[in-house]
Amino acid sequence: MTTYTAINLIKYHERGPISPDYFQTVKLDKPNANAGELIVKQTYMSLDPAMFGWMNADTDSYMPPVELGTVMRSFGIGEVVESNHSGFNVGDRITGMMGWQEYFLSNGEGLEKVDSSLPDVDILSVLSLPGLTATQGLFNVGKAKSGETLVVTGAAGSVGSIVGQLAKADGLRVIGIVGSEEKANWIVKELGFDGAINYKSDELDAQLAALAPNGIDLFFENTGGPIQHLIYNRMNEHGRIVLCGLIAGYEKGEYSAAPSWMNAIRKRLTIQGFVMTDHFHNSQALLEKLAPYVLEGKIKHRSHVLTGLESAISGLNLFSTGGNKGKLIVKL
Amino acid sequence: MTTYTAINLIKYHERGPISPDYFQTVKLDKPNANAGELIVKQTYMSLDPAMFGWMNADTDSYMPPVELGTVMRSFGIGEVVESNHSGFNVGDRITGMMGWQEYFLSNGEGLEKVDSSLPDVDILSVLSLPGLTATQGLFNVGKAKSGETLVVTGAAGSVGSIVGQLAKADGLRVIGIVGSEEKANWIVKELGFDGAINYKSDELDAQLAALAPNGIDLFFENTGGPIQHLIYNRMNEHGRIVLCGLIAGYEKGEYSAAPSWMNAIRKRLTIQGFVMTDHFHNSQALLEKLAPYVLEGKIKHRSHVLTGLESAISGLNLFSTGGNKGKLIVKL
Repeated sequence: MTTYTAINLIKYHERGPISPDYFQTVKLDKPNANAGELIVKQTYMSLDPAMFGWMNADTDSYMPPVELGTVMRSFGIGEVVESNHSGFNVGDRITGMMGWQEYFLSNGEGLEKVDSSLPDVDILSVLSLPGLTATQGLFNVGKAKSGETLVVTGAAGSVGSIVGQLAKADGLRVIGIVGSEEKANWIVKELGFDGAINYKSDELDAQLAALAPNGIDLFFENTGGPIQHLIYNRMNEHGRIVLCGLIAGYEKGEYSAAPSWMNAIRKRLTIQGFVMTDHFHNSQALLEKLAPYVLEGKIKHRSHVLTGLESAISGLNLFSTGGNKGKLIVKL
Repeated sequence: MTTYTAINLIKYHERGPISPDYFQTVKLDKPNANAGELIVKQTYMSLDPAMFGWMNADTDSYMPPVELGTVMRSFGIGEVVESNHSGFNVGDRITGMMGWQEYFLSNGEGLEKVDSSLPDVDILSVLSLPGLTATQGLFNVGKAKSGETLVVTGAAGSVGSIVGQLAKADGLRVIGIVGSEEKANWIVKELGFDGAINYKSDELDAQLAALAPNGIDLFFENTGGPIQHLIYNRMNEHGRIVLCGLIAGYEKGEYSAAPSWMNAIRKRLTIQGFVMTDHFHNSQALLEKLAPYVLEGKIKHRSHVLTGLESAISGLNLFSTGGNKGKLIVKL
C-alpha cells in the first residue's frame, strides 16, 4: 500500500438531500508514523445524525464545522498497523474520530483502546457513541428512576433503542415513538418496550394516554416533530426532558417552535440539551456503567451495514427518510 | 369587632381583565381561637402574578385553584390578636397565606414569625415571596456565578428587581428588560443594573448585542413575550434559563410557542421551571442567604400600595398593563 482513499468535504450543507457534489474522493500517499505517532487501518465507520451539524457552516454548533477540503469527520474502529507511540502496539483495536478514510495517522490523542471481544460492528453499535450517549443522557442528564414512565423518540434508532432497553432493565415503564409498524413491532416484541407508537398513525394523543396512564416523567428527545407537543403536555410534575437530537429538522435545516414554557413552570420541568462530545472524558465510567447490561444480554441491537467508503455519502440520507434499520455503519 | 370583611372568589377566570363580578365581598362573624388556634389581624396583603393561576379552574397548576365561594388566596402580613396556640403570642408579627380578609383563623400551619424590624411593606416587598423567589431562582436554580452575564425580564418587578440586584452584588453583569423608559431609568440609575432595554422600543436585538457583548449565561424569565426569542438566541454554551413567570400571557390565558429546542442542544442549555411554593420548607435558609444583602443596603425596592381590601380586585389588572410601579401591596 502506497496510497489510500479518503473523502473530503468540499461544500457546506444547508438543506436538502446529501448528494455526491458535497464531497471529493481523493487518493493520498500513505504517511509514515514518526516518533509519538501511530497509524490505524479503519475497518468500520459510524454514520451519525450529528454529521449534519458538522457539515453546516452556519451551525453555531458544539463542534466547529469540518474545514472545507479536509477529510469528513466521523467516528470509527480499526486496528493499529504501525506504531511509534509508546501507548499503542501494532494489533491494538482502537476507536476514535478517524474520519472518512482508510488509514488514520494519529498522535494518540482522543483514541481509545477497545477492551472487549465483541465484533467491530457491535462495538460501534453499542459500546461507543450510541451507548455512551444513551447512558449519559438517561442516567446523568435524565436521572431515570425505577417506577417512572419514559417516552423516547427515535426509539428504533441507535441511541433510542439503547435508552429504552437500559430504562426497561432499570424498572421504568418505556414507550417508544417510531416511524413504521415494523419498527414498532421490533421494539415491543424484540426489545421488550412496554409500548410503541408509530407517529405516522392516527389518534396519537389517545395512544399516548393509553400507554402512559400515569403521565410521563422522562422524555428522551431524538427527533422533534409534532408529537413533541403531545408528549410535553402529558409530562408529570418535576419531569425531565433530555434533548439529544431533533433529526426531523436536520435535512431542512429548520426546527419547529417548541411548546410554550408555561407547562415547564406549572410542572417544574427541567429541559436539558446535551451532546456526548462534552462527556468523552467520562467515557470510561460510562462504559463501566453500560457494559454489565451488554454482558447480561439486555441490550439487543441491529446494525445496518453499508459497504465501501463512498456508500457513506448516500447513507446519510437514510436518517432523513428513516430508511435505515438499525445503526448505520460503513464497512471499509 | 364582631364581624369582619372577606372577599370570596365566585367565578373562575380564563382571559380578559379582572372585573368585580369574579368576587363577592362578605361579612363574616368573628371566629374564636379554640385550643391550638390563633387569630391574625392582617395589615398588608401581597398581590402576585401567581394569582392568575389560582383563579383558573383549568390550570393544571402547581397549586389547586381556589375553591369557588371561598376566600381568595393571597400572602400577607399581620399581627396575632388572639392565641390559644403555644407557639404564638399576642403581638407576634406573622406572614403566611392569609387570603383576602381582615382576620385569619389558623392552626399555625404555614405561618412564619417575622424576625426583622423592617416595616410591614418592606417585609412583603423583599423578605417574603419576592425575595425568596429571587434567591431560590437565581442561586439554586440558575446557579449564578460571578463574571457571568444575566438577563432578567420584568426587571422592575418585585422579583426581577431583586434578582438583578442580588446578581449585581455577586459580580454578574446584569441587563434588565422592562416596559417603560421610566422603569429602565430606575433599574439603571437607582438599582445599579449595567443596562436596561425597554421591550417597547426598536432594534431590540442590536440593543441586546451591545449590552451583552459576551453573550448571555443566565436568563431569568418573568414575562415571556417576543424578546424571549432574542435572548434565547444569544445564550452562551452551558447557559441556564430560569422559568419563573410568563406574565405576558396571564390575562389572555395564552402562551406563545417557545424557541425551538435546537439551540438548547447546540448550546447545552438547561431550561428549568420552578415555583416558590415547592421550596417553602427551605425558607429559613433562603432568608439567611438574602438577609445580609438587605442589611447591607444592597436591595432597594419600591412598593405600590393600594388601600382597602377591595382595591385588590382592580389591582390585579396592573400586572397585565404594567401599570404598577413596584411591588403591589394592599393596605388593610
